Amino acid sequence: MVKKRIVVALGGNAILSTDASAQAQEKALADTAEKLAVLVEQGNDLIISHGNGPQVGNLLLQQATADSKKNPAMPLDACVAMTQGSIGYWMQKAIRQALKDRGIIKEVATILTEVVVDGNDPAFKDPTKPVGPFLTESEAKELASEAIYKEDAGRGWRKVVPSPKPIDISETSIIKQLVEQGVITISTGGGGIPVIEKNGRLEGVEAVIDKDFASEKLAELIDADLFIILTGVDNVYINFNKPDQKMLEKVTTSELRQFIKENQFASGSMLPKVEAAIMFAEQSKKQGETVITSLENLANVIKNNGGTRVIRG
Amino acid sequence: MVKKRIVVALGGNAILSTDASAQAQEKALADTAEKLAVLVEQGNDLIISHGNGPQVGNLLLQQATADSKKNPAMPLDACVAMTQGSIGYWMQKAIRQALKDRGIIKEVATILTEVVVDGNDPAFKDPTKPVGPFLTESEAKELASEAIYKEDAGRGWRKVVPSPKPIDISETSIIKQLVEQGVITISTGGGGIPVIEKNGRLEGVEAVIDKDFASEKLAELIDADLFIILTGVDNVYINFNKPDQKMLEKVTTSELRQFIKENQFASGSMLPKVEAAIMFAEQSKKQGETVITSLENLANVIKNNGGTRVIRG
Repeated sequence: MVKKRIVVALGGNAILSTDASAQAQEKALADTAEKLAVLVEQGNDLIISHGNGPQVGNLLLQQATADSKKNPAMPLDACVAMTQGSIGYWMQKAIRQALKDRGIIKEVATILTEVVVDGNDPAFKDPTKPVGPFLTESEAKELASEAIYKEDAGRGWRKVVPSPKPIDISETSIIKQLVEQGVITISTGGGGIPVIEKNGRLEGVEAVIDKDFASEKLAELIDADLFIILTGVDNVYINFNKPDQKMLEKVTTSELRQFIKENQFASGSMLPKVEAAIMFAEQSKKQGETVITSLENLANVIKNNGGTRVIRG
Repeated sequence: MVKKRIVVALGGNAILSTDASAQAQEKALADTAEKLAVLVEQGNDLIISHGNGPQVGNLLLQQATADSKKNPAMPLDACVAMTQGSIGYWMQKAIRQALKDRGIIKEVATILTEVVVDGNDPAFKDPTKPVGPFLTESEAKELASEAIYKEDAGRGWRKVVPSPKPIDISETSIIKQLVEQGVITISTGGGGIPVIEKNGRLEGVEAVIDKDFASEKLAELIDADLFIILTGVDNVYINFNKPDQKMLEKVTTSELRQFIKENQFASGSMLPKVEAAIMFAEQSKKQGETVITSLENLANVIKNNGGTRVIRG
């Protein structure tokens, strides 16, 4: 089998579903690592990225609860960095073990990752991503000078931050070097630590970068052959739950653009994955493909062309 | 000037002294980066390690305050990983900026680091390192089944964890590769994430590894020429604050052993630094030297042999 350079984007929910304890998250990652190890067994280069939605959410709540002058809450950029630390640690430990159990000797490295966004990204004019604790209307109004707060589906008021598009990854060449040396990398966690350039300086910013878009950027920049977006289902569907429901196997980017026009994909869940899939298939210098599938179906992606395969065209 | 491979160990207190806000810690690291950049300007390879005492202390307090079934406190190993994330992020950003301001083009990478300790280390029989919040005697007694609690200098009861000696660093070869490619690395933060081997598996453990010992191990494993331990003073003294006080400049490891016997160095502050200094000077394959000095005096270490230089002998 031809060795492929594969970027796999994992969801943060796959790591933290119901039980938020460290043990439960380590257990989930041990299962995940078993499945990922198969790609390495097949002889491929593995480049892992992951979400951090539930983890950074919990951390922001902890920070807000304990906030004091002596021990102030950390801003969002630092909190993303912290979840890259905890999740990266659990994941690298799990993958090393899964490889060891298979007699595979490979190095695994977690690289702290900053993702550059454009300070003029329209997202900064219209923050949409709710983060942190639920507040009462009056609490929210009090804090309105520091940030934007919006009413969240009757559950209370929450701070909303922008979700700008990634334009660069500061650690690209380091990750590329390591991949070329056969090191399995874990990077771009939680969409990366969001930074903007301001008068020639990179500064952290209160924003959340979509994990699938950041992972797509990573796959592009390191010249991946294959970009795999993991989700809850083996394949993407159109006319989902309708009599004419259709499972997508091999699909072109232009077909997908048409399906997007038809509102086939739920925004905030499948839509960004499909958009990221199109982006990689169309922008990859190597004519790379994107596959959207489930962790359970991962082994079939290479063996049997499983999952929904997105190709340029 | 001959290019040297230099490991610099920074204290966590140098990053967080009084103001625990992210801004204040970033400011402190910007100043630190200015001083560290000089070593790079002089043409040396820079390998940075750092403490996390105040940072992980604050994080443990936040975790304890917000602890709930839905959002449980993370264990110590995960908290160390999280501080490697936040401090590493701030530090890499500061160093990249300091180099950019000097027109130096170099990559900077933060590598999440696990440090292996021996499960049979005597420290596990006698935990000494207080961590987390102060409790009342009854609160402590209640938790006594889960961990060991000791009365802390009249300020209340605190959990104490062991401080075992580092025996290996899981990311050694990755860090070495990056250094050889001219990448400035940040690693082994907070003495590293403590792990022990249990039935062929590495597991996180509730322990705190001394930052100076872990940094010494790093310097040894990556074949450093020079190991610099930063502290509050330019030089180590004997008979400190006495009429016959003497500043140490060039000193041999056997002389230092004698001074240790004379209880010249405060345990918990200068003593571990002196012990780590001796260890590197005696165990380094390259006959490397250790220097104990202040951040302010760093530029003089190479230029004028400043600081207290510890040589084998």
